Amino acid sequence: MTKLQVAIDRVPLDKALNLAQELDGIVDIIELGTSIVKDYGLEALKKADFKLEKSQLLIDLKTIDEGEYEFVKGYETSANILTVMGASSLGTLKKTYEIAQDTGKDIFIDLMEIDDQKVNEISNMPNAIYGLHHSKDATTTFNAVDTIQAFHESHPEIKKIAVAGGVDLDQAKKISNQGIADVIIVGGKIAGSSDPISSAKEFMEAIQ
Amino acid sequence: MTKLQVAIDRVPLDKALNLAQELDGIVDIIELGTSIVKDYGLEALKKADFKLEKSQLLIDLKTIDEGEYEFVKGYETSANILTVMGASSLGTLKKTYEIAQDTGKDIFIDLMEIDDQKVNEISNMPNAIYGLHHSKDATTTFNAVDTIQAFHESHPEIKKIAVAGGVDLDQAKKISNQGIADVIIVGGKIAGSSDPISSAKEFMEAIQ
Repeated sequence: MTKLQVAIDRVPLDKALNLAQELDGIVDIIELGTSIVKDYGLEALKKADFKLEKSQLLIDLKTIDEGEYEFVKGYETSANILTVMGASSLGTLKKTYEIAQDTGKDIFIDLMEIDDQKVNEISNMPNAIYGLHHSKDATTTFNAVDTIQAFHESHPEIKKIAVAGGVDLDQAKKISNQGIADVIIVGGKIAGSSDPISSAKEFMEAIQ
Repeated sequence: MTKLQVAIDRVPLDKALNLAQELDGIVDIIELGTSIVKDYGLEALKKADFKLEKSQLLIDLKTIDEGEYEFVKGYETSANILTVMGASSLGTLKKTYEIAQDTGKDIFIDLMEIDDQKVNEISNMPNAIYGLHHSKDATTTFNAVDTIQAFHESHPEIKKIAVAGGVDLDQAKKISNQGIADVIIVGGKIAGSSDPISSAKEFMEAIQ
């Protein structure tokens, strides 16, 4: 069954906290986006009580170096999942995967802007979630279903796939029917809508 | 003349602030490392009074997406220079360069983990500082002088070069004599020494 991850971005920390609590149990994974990390910092996220009852918490750290420092700090928050860039050095990727395995938590490898050769070099981490990510700054359009299909054919060894980048209700339904991706990530279309809870429920229904 | 940039990392924010003020005027550029950004956030760095009298302030944002959001926020602090990853999309790089140009501030492109082909695609930003960066997580050693020479020969169009990664006094002297790099970045060997001010002065003397 496809999971829904909702990204919360570019809002004050208290608003992010409220929204996360409102979405707790409605969606599978609640993401605090990179903007929340870079605006407020992990120290503030450690102090804020993000302990969710039912949903998992992902913090989009986008680690690209200093893997040990960032992942140890990151897991001191209530995050269940942290992200690392596929564009990092193999040393960074290996170290962050190791820490995730040791702490029994999850790691999400963001494949944004890396080529197939690099994917092949880093596809040997069976418990990692691999994220197909269409950059927010990209000017080209993104056909998620085709991208997932092509990626799956090139990398059948990768079992856990997430997809992010402008996914709407219609695309979410198609991705779910396609049955390859484990996680669909939606940002503004839920968190930025006038009624995030209703929007979240609509997406959850679309992927059943 | 080669400039010295000192990176402050992995210390409490008040200690970072004190050290930056102590180093003001002694070194050319004072860097607040990525650990300071991710631990405390840009909102705290906006509130803290980092206004330096003589040295420039660089914040190592390591932007890899959301170029406009991060650079607009970043320049709202007292930073003169912000960093973006060369591994970002061309859209992100173009946008951040544009914002730097429009605000009359500086941009540092971190070349960590990108290949020559990508460097060629992004070497057309004449006012950017291009940073040769040996990852903190890398397990291989780094001969800075040889790396700079080879880079300069492959990319003579790039005029402003910075170099980071385990540079010691001896290497700093050699890089300065070589006369290619504009900026030498030193982290722990100054900021983490028992007497950062003396260490900074030693490095400054070495590169005269």
